[in-house]
Amino acid sequence: MPLIEVGGQRPYLVTIETGALTRAWVPERRAALIVDAGLPAKWVQQAQAAFGPELTVTVPGGDACKTAEVWSGTLSRLAQANLPRDGAVIGLGGGATTDLAGFVAASYLRGVASYSVPTTLLGMVDAAVGGKTGLNLPEGKNLVGAFWPPNAVWCDPALLTSLPPAVLREGAAEAYKHGLIADPSLLERVLSPDFRPDHPAFEATLADAIRVKADIVTRDLLETGERAHLNFGHTLAHAIEAVTRHGISHGDAVGYGLHYAALLSRELGGDDLTGYTRRFLAWQQPKALPALSFDDLNAYMARDKKADSVGVRFVLLHGLARPYLARVPDGVLRSVFEVWQAEVSFPVPS
Amino acid sequence: MPLIEVGGQRPYLVTIETGALTRAWVPERRAALIVDAGLPAKWVQQAQAAFGPELTVTVPGGDACKTAEVWSGTLSRLAQANLPRDGAVIGLGGGATTDLAGFVAASYLRGVASYSVPTTLLGMVDAAVGGKTGLNLPEGKNLVGAFWPPNAVWCDPALLTSLPPAVLREGAAEAYKHGLIADPSLLERVLSPDFRPDHPAFEATLADAIRVKADIVTRDLLETGERAHLNFGHTLAHAIEAVTRHGISHGDAVGYGLHYAALLSRELGGDDLTGYTRRFLAWQQPKALPALSFDDLNAYMARDKKADSVGVRFVLLHGLARPYLARVPDGVLRSVFEVWQAEVSFPVPS
Repeated sequence: MPLIEVGGQRPYLVTIETGALTRAWVPERRAALIVDAGLPAKWVQQAQAAFGPELTVTVPGGDACKTAEVWSGTLSRLAQANLPRDGAVIGLGGGATTDLAGFVAASYLRGVASYSVPTTLLGMVDAAVGGKTGLNLPEGKNLVGAFWPPNAVWCDPALLTSLPPAVLREGAAEAYKHGLIADPSLLERVLSPDFRPDHPAFEATLADAIRVKADIVTRDLLETGERAHLNFGHTLAHAIEAVTRHGISHGDAVGYGLHYAALLSRELGGDDLTGYTRRFLAWQQPKALPALSFDDLNAYMARDKKADSVGVRFVLLHGLARPYLARVPDGVLRSVFEVWQAEVSFPVPS
Repeated sequence: MPLIEVGGQRPYLVTIETGALTRAWVPERRAALIVDAGLPAKWVQQAQAAFGPELTVTVPGGDACKTAEVWSGTLSRLAQANLPRDGAVIGLGGGATTDLAGFVAASYLRGVASYSVPTTLLGMVDAAVGGKTGLNLPEGKNLVGAFWPPNAVWCDPALLTSLPPAVLREGAAEAYKHGLIADPSLLERVLSPDFRPDHPAFEATLADAIRVKADIVTRDLLETGERAHLNFGHTLAHAIEAVTRHGISHGDAVGYGLHYAALLSRELGGDDLTGYTRRFLAWQQPKALPALSFDDLNAYMARDKKADSVGVRFVLLHGLARPYLARVPDGVLRSVFEVWQAEVSFPVPS
């Protein structure tokens, strides 16, 4: 079974194995389980059997849980149960649930042990590894939070078998991004018919996608440098999610954002990788975009966390697996946006 | 001028000097100032002149600002202003304001530079040094937060000259506590008529009181051991604040709590230090307590952050400057409570 170590001040292991949830446990005697309301009851029961939590807090599915209200309500539940500082918080759900649960763990009594069991492909490949936790604000996504690495993560492909194919395709965006920025072998494997949770090849491909992120965050725990590369495609994606008020899912928005970033990269002299991102969109079949205005999106991009006092930095590619950071003039952002918009406004050709 | 270094991963300086605010500055180009609504306008103007913040967020005075609502509203203001991740958050106000501002700094974009200008004696001696930031929950005080050390702290005695004498006496509780747990020279100096902000001796006494905390947190940044000693008197104090819904101020509650902790210490075989704590209460003249039930208070004490899965640990004293941690049986807590209650229910004799 693949076992990936993520380094840093408090290294931890990511277990990738079918059936991992049935064998998971935590050393803390007292624990709270935070679960996504949309999960099949059997995964919740399996987690309760594995961890023996003294309370289970059910939170709304998706980004609806990443609010100050849900966060403070969850903290109150933990306080009412007198969960002690040597207790544990375990998040079971998609990336939003594990982001929330992680921030609850980071902030309850100024920090308790945190564990993640992601139940979506997106959560496994992206959210559950790396220690970023947080909430959204009305002003934008992930504007609030803490770096609070989990003590362990379990990625169980069995949990993905109940997902509709469209949700799995949506979630493949982060794995494909890891192919573009670091491990081109993933580009074929993610789009292959074998990339499905019940196929024997799935575990290894999933592990390789997770390893890209694990390796990068190990080298750059607090995003002072290289870690920003993981945001390839995300600056526009976050803006799309904000402008559409999450009408476009994160995975779909990243699919669109990857193509924009590939177009920008080419415009600024990099290899033409737009064939890859176009092919991904054709495979992913993301939800159709509403009419979008560049100015609206750019207001959100300017507020992106990658922005500093000088301006927004974009992650671009010189070529496959050759990412870099660059400030892009507004005029270029706008003209490339028009090219992008013309392409994504119609069914994307493969 | 006294300058105290607080160690840890990111050491920082505490400046204690009359006029410090007029000479303060931060290296960040963009900053948000968070101020207590109850402050005299001239301190706010002085801070604005010193730091040149691009936005000033006014928050309710006292614990009313330590809520999830005020916290998320403040974060939204920062996001609307596009404060970047290399920006700064500066808190100007009492301990509650700097606790809130510190947690805003800790959580905005997963952490930006934090600065504190405490405007109360309590804030200078306790809240502004050590990196503890946070909010209250309906279930109790400081149950939410982060360890997020400031980059610098300015303690300006000039800011204390406008405080009513009762507020200054209330705030002396933490300085007196530092006398009890670490620097007995403070016991006389804090109760001396010279301990007033416009007296030449004040700066040095204030600095020595701050140094006790700075030295302890330098040795134990994350409260894995010795730092818990700073909570002498606080387990009951926090419970009193919670049960009275902050009808009793923190400083007054600590005054009462010091006496309870001294009684407990004596009961468990320590030196009799109750003369010191009785004398302090007589000098402090805290607000009279309402009728309190041990069971109500004990429910909050059991939820104290110092509690782990085994039970509540109390900070006690073998003698002056000889603190230790102990689990105290409920029966002892109750019988000593009755002694304490009989003493504090009437005007305290000096």
